[in-house]
Amino acid sequence: MSNPVLVEVTRGALVESRHRGMVIAVDGDGNTVFSLGETDVGVFPRSACKAMQALPLMETGAADAYGFGTRELALACSSHNGEPEHVAVAAKMLAAAGRDVDTLECGAHWSGNQKTLIEQARTLERPIALHNNCSGKHAGFICAVCHDGGDPTGYVTYDHPLQREIRGTMEALTGGVLGHDNCGTDGCSIPTYAVPLKGLAHGFAKMATGAGLEPERARASKRLIEACMAEPFYVAGTGRACTRLMQLAPGRIFAKTGAEGVFCAAIPGKGIGIALKCEDGTTRAAEAMVAATLARFFKDEPDLHASLRGMADHAMHNWNGLFVGDVRVTDAFA
Amino acid sequence: MSNPVLVEVTRGALVESRHRGMVIAVDGDGNTVFSLGETDVGVFPRSACKAMQALPLMETGAADAYGFGTRELALACSSHNGEPEHVAVAAKMLAAAGRDVDTLECGAHWSGNQKTLIEQARTLERPIALHNNCSGKHAGFICAVCHDGGDPTGYVTYDHPLQREIRGTMEALTGGVLGHDNCGTDGCSIPTYAVPLKGLAHGFAKMATGAGLEPERARASKRLIEACMAEPFYVAGTGRACTRLMQLAPGRIFAKTGAEGVFCAAIPGKGIGIALKCEDGTTRAAEAMVAATLARFFKDEPDLHASLRGMADHAMHNWNGLFVGDVRVTDAFA
Repeated sequence: MSNPVLVEVTRGALVESRHRGMVIAVDGDGNTVFSLGETDVGVFPRSACKAMQALPLMETGAADAYGFGTRELALACSSHNGEPEHVAVAAKMLAAAGRDVDTLECGAHWSGNQKTLIEQARTLERPIALHNNCSGKHAGFICAVCHDGGDPTGYVTYDHPLQREIRGTMEALTGGVLGHDNCGTDGCSIPTYAVPLKGLAHGFAKMATGAGLEPERARASKRLIEACMAEPFYVAGTGRACTRLMQLAPGRIFAKTGAEGVFCAAIPGKGIGIALKCEDGTTRAAEAMVAATLARFFKDEPDLHASLRGMADHAMHNWNGLFVGDVRVTDAFA
Repeated sequence: MSNPVLVEVTRGALVESRHRGMVIAVDGDGNTVFSLGETDVGVFPRSACKAMQALPLMETGAADAYGFGTRELALACSSHNGEPEHVAVAAKMLAAAGRDVDTLECGAHWSGNQKTLIEQARTLERPIALHNNCSGKHAGFICAVCHDGGDPTGYVTYDHPLQREIRGTMEALTGGVLGHDNCGTDGCSIPTYAVPLKGLAHGFAKMATGAGLEPERARASKRLIEACMAEPFYVAGTGRACTRLMQLAPGRIFAKTGAEGVFCAAIPGKGIGIALKCEDGTTRAAEAMVAATLARFFKDEPDLHASLRGMADHAMHNWNGLFVGDVRVTDAFA
């Protein structure tokens, strides 16, 4: 089966490039309410499942013991720009556990956001691990391990107790079987497991609704999702799609991107979880796809619907500010 | 018809993302010698056809009148990083025509190359039009117009005599009909015309061999292609695929990238022109595709073949330097 073309990029009167993909939206009971393309094949969720990976931080009691508020919880679920506010909160989280940047095992990189990168180039000799887009997630990992009295050394490896716990958590949420066969190494060195999109979407529907979860996990999930929706800047940063999507409907839309064209989202008020992937891994297409998918669930709110469709279908301009073409989703989302 | 998957990106033991595309290689007489996917559909060549667009610079006599050597000619065909050497040659070209940066109509942008961008951020308040990746092409345009006694104002517009001349040149080379119906606006504001890949490949085969061209155009084409092969740094810059490909076989491979996953290339010694596009517009895939296509024509040179296949199929590493997966072409290129 070939996945359908879901996003077109136009220039003049012609389509210049095409993106295929797969999308699914399910309710808390796992019923499919919208689907495009092949959604039963394993997909690496990459950073789109960070809220699932942050559950040990909550369930060990570390987040409460260290007095974390919504910003820390949002940052634990984030892929951030490495802006000063992100770096400061990550450092604060590590300090709460009596640790610092040296405990991070995520590696370092310059910001992926051009504006932030220019600021960093002007103020830093080189970035450190706190600037890594995953530093909040890793700080959360370290807090969970340290609060439990464990040794965080090697916390990114497949056999570390933390990664075993995350594996179990994600299996319970997604219904997938996670192991060496479907495991890859993520950009920040932790294991990532290929899971069918349907399972990922169901996992986020469960987190958003509590359906089928034990009370402790339901509470922890709700707090993480609500923290992200309350602090969208700390989930991504200036100009980023996750931040903009969550700002469009404060407290009502959760959205989280992952590398290689993945997006997960949830609409808690409607009990919906969403997972999608652009087949070719392109972010611009995944962003259009998630906005168009979310829009389908807000047809009864014309302003919000229009704003979401405006993120799905948008004009492109060149270096002189001239209109050159559009990114637009296909009729598959109608 | 659906274009075939030509590039896969793996993670662990699984394929994470897939790129479809179309490729064609033709000889100077226009005979197809290799082809994948749909090659009769119009494709915007974008910057991949800059060597064609530079022909007026040669054919007006401007390049010789201004004493341009291989670096200026290569830069006229380039999409450069905006490194200091690129900026200096573009400024020198404009000065030869009695002009400066103010005549450029390409707009300004920060370098697309991270290392160069960091250097720029540390040394510039903001980039100017000389830093635009197209500044060499635009300087060549201005030189052609000024040497001819024309007014360069508006040289980027569809109706300017220069763009009319380029339109005619490209029609002759590609066999396509260029007009408003297949015209879009490029990133640097000049018109770009969708042309079937077969016509583009044939145009580069003609430029590389002189087949079917009038002697003056054959000479001009040969000088531009040879200048690019002699000065690969000035066609792109540090770390760039065009530069690396041409450095692999000095004087024997011409290669030029374009936005949205296009690549054109030529092997003058074998009389071959190549044009390809990744359907989804992704550069990493277009680079793998052009390297694999070129490799097919050098099976008799094991070292060069291996180097080209090494650019087609290559490992990816994460922020910690750990191996995470491969970019690899499919068996379609075998």
